[in-house]
Amino acid sequence: MLRMAEPIIHHRHPEFAELFTRVCGNLRYVFQTKHEVFTLTSSGTGAMEAVVCNIHSPGETALYVNGGKFGERWGEILRAYGINAVEVKVEWGDSVLPRHIEAALEEHPHAKAVYLTHSETSTGAATDVRAIARIAGRRGDVLTIVDGITAVGAMELRMDEWGIDCVVTGSQKGLMIPPGLAFVAVSPKAWERVKSSRLPRYYFDLRAAQKALEANDTPWTPAISLVVGLDAALTMIRQEGIERVWARHARLGTALRAAVQAVGLQILAKEPSNALTAIRIPESVDSGKFSTLLKKTYGITAAGGQGHLAGRIVRISHLGYYDELDMVAVISAIEMALTDCGFVFERGAGIRAAQESFARHSS
Amino acid sequence: MLRMAEPIIHHRHPEFAELFTRVCGNLRYVFQTKHEVFTLTSSGTGAMEAVVCNIHSPGETALYVNGGKFGERWGEILRAYGINAVEVKVEWGDSVLPRHIEAALEEHPHAKAVYLTHSETSTGAATDVRAIARIAGRRGDVLTIVDGITAVGAMELRMDEWGIDCVVTGSQKGLMIPPGLAFVAVSPKAWERVKSSRLPRYYFDLRAAQKALEANDTPWTPAISLVVGLDAALTMIRQEGIERVWARHARLGTALRAAVQAVGLQILAKEPSNALTAIRIPESVDSGKFSTLLKKTYGITAAGGQGHLAGRIVRISHLGYYDELDMVAVISAIEMALTDCGFVFERGAGIRAAQESFARHSS
Repeated sequence: MLRMAEPIIHHRHPEFAELFTRVCGNLRYVFQTKHEVFTLTSSGTGAMEAVVCNIHSPGETALYVNGGKFGERWGEILRAYGINAVEVKVEWGDSVLPRHIEAALEEHPHAKAVYLTHSETSTGAATDVRAIARIAGRRGDVLTIVDGITAVGAMELRMDEWGIDCVVTGSQKGLMIPPGLAFVAVSPKAWERVKSSRLPRYYFDLRAAQKALEANDTPWTPAISLVVGLDAALTMIRQEGIERVWARHARLGTALRAAVQAVGLQILAKEPSNALTAIRIPESVDSGKFSTLLKKTYGITAAGGQGHLAGRIVRISHLGYYDELDMVAVISAIEMALTDCGFVFERGAGIRAAQESFARHSS
Repeated sequence: MLRMAEPIIHHRHPEFAELFTRVCGNLRYVFQTKHEVFTLTSSGTGAMEAVVCNIHSPGETALYVNGGKFGERWGEILRAYGINAVEVKVEWGDSVLPRHIEAALEEHPHAKAVYLTHSETSTGAATDVRAIARIAGRRGDVLTIVDGITAVGAMELRMDEWGIDCVVTGSQKGLMIPPGLAFVAVSPKAWERVKSSRLPRYYFDLRAAQKALEANDTPWTPAISLVVGLDAALTMIRQEGIERVWARHARLGTALRAAVQAVGLQILAKEPSNALTAIRIPESVDSGKFSTLLKKTYGITAAGGQGHLAGRIVRISHLGYYDELDMVAVISAIEMALTDCGFVFERGAGIRAAQESFARHSS
């Protein structure tokens, strides 16, 4: 991404306005919304906080699903702002069922929003945000909020059509550029809340962002080199087509899961995300040694488990500009590292399963 | 800065911890503090908000100096958090006098902090933060907070020695890299407030930043490519030496001001900043035409005035990696654009004055 090393243009300059207009249009396409997508200079966590502090007023109640570290974070942010945060707890690796949300909304009829995690990065589990948005939408006053940080650009998401009110993501996941930018898409229903919210905010105030956006600008100096990189990345996504990008991630995720099972390992998530795969490490395999081999010997970066999953899973990301042969390389590395760890299976079985999977789901 | 286009390392990786440890040490050197300097992924405004929401509790009183657009911003942020923000108003272009702060503190004995702008970018005026910190420091309970966004790395600032409690800056000014990072330096006295503050915050919570810093990390994914660029920029500053960097900015600012006056124009600020110079445009010169000529014909970017100064001043930045001959080029462009606008003066008088100034203040 050499474009990010170019001399910096100023964000009040017409050249930036032209670029930013194109970026905002392409962001709306990626989120499948015709409403505003705001660009913040922050990590994805900043965008999560931006939603909370813009849509609530003190003392309100909200539901959030805790099925992993990132779902848990919604609860932390809500509580930091004095919101009565009702946890819908899910075993890490499981996905919340729409009827659990329905029951929680029955029990908490004053809840103003339901906070979800489309792809829970700590477990590799996916949430059926479409079905939950339908349930929440039936109650006039409940907003559906989606952390799409590892999902946007990887998993099907049609914000407007599905009736989702806010979606947040970061720049370094499905949008494929370095970290430092984050995005918040806001439905008209959520915007009504922004206008009446009484929580304190300044840097993340979406009213200021809206006012600046009318001049194709951001209210504060943005991370301009990253916006320039984003423009290039979004152009790539637009050229491939968002449905094709989702299908590619589905094809790669499906093949990796088939490969993992073919060598005799298990997937943690019951409803797996197509952005990453959390693999259960058998008792007989030293997970630390396995990860180190993947990284040092075979050059594949894998993350370990967090919290009580530490040492029990390895997480492989397949989010962004990956293709079939990239996955073949990853699967081969897994096979070789497993063999090095003394795990017994038929060498090549994973690759074969992946190839068969690719053949069944050809692009 | 091609280093910023290199593949992204992960912030939980030992390679990042090593780099970030070096960055933090060099930041402490630049701020002249032995206490923590926190790195945030945001604009400088985010760092300003981080100070406010970390050191106050609801209903407290604070003073702020409004001598321009950025001083005014302190008031906006304080009010967004329900702080009783007492404005000390200064004519734009003037600098607050220490005795005005003394009087305001007498009048508001419960004030918990004084908010200052070291170099006011909208007017080019400098504030004597050292003298004011001494006055505020005499009252045990008052913190001195400095917006150093265009000052850090340009104007002498000795945070610990001068008794300043918080200093904020951004990455794209004196630190010479693209925008997207911001910094907050915190004295032990201010840290006591952080521990007891009862304002809501999450992304900007300095307690989380402190905890992460103990592992040479940030609590949320930082703008890693910018941190890599920052490492290179701070190494340059360290090699030159911070006193020499300040002296270079003083030498360039002094020469530019001498040049401007030698061609018959006036400086807006009575106590000028060495980071930028705001030049009053005479009635006879069309300021729009002058700025356009500077930019389009001579390739020098100048900013106009804001608010009631629109059309009345032109602001020239000389912050970062400028040297004497860069200033000669700027001054020559000013002379040529003035002539093009029909302004009558002795051609070359500005350059001569600058050369004489350089000779008097040789490095």
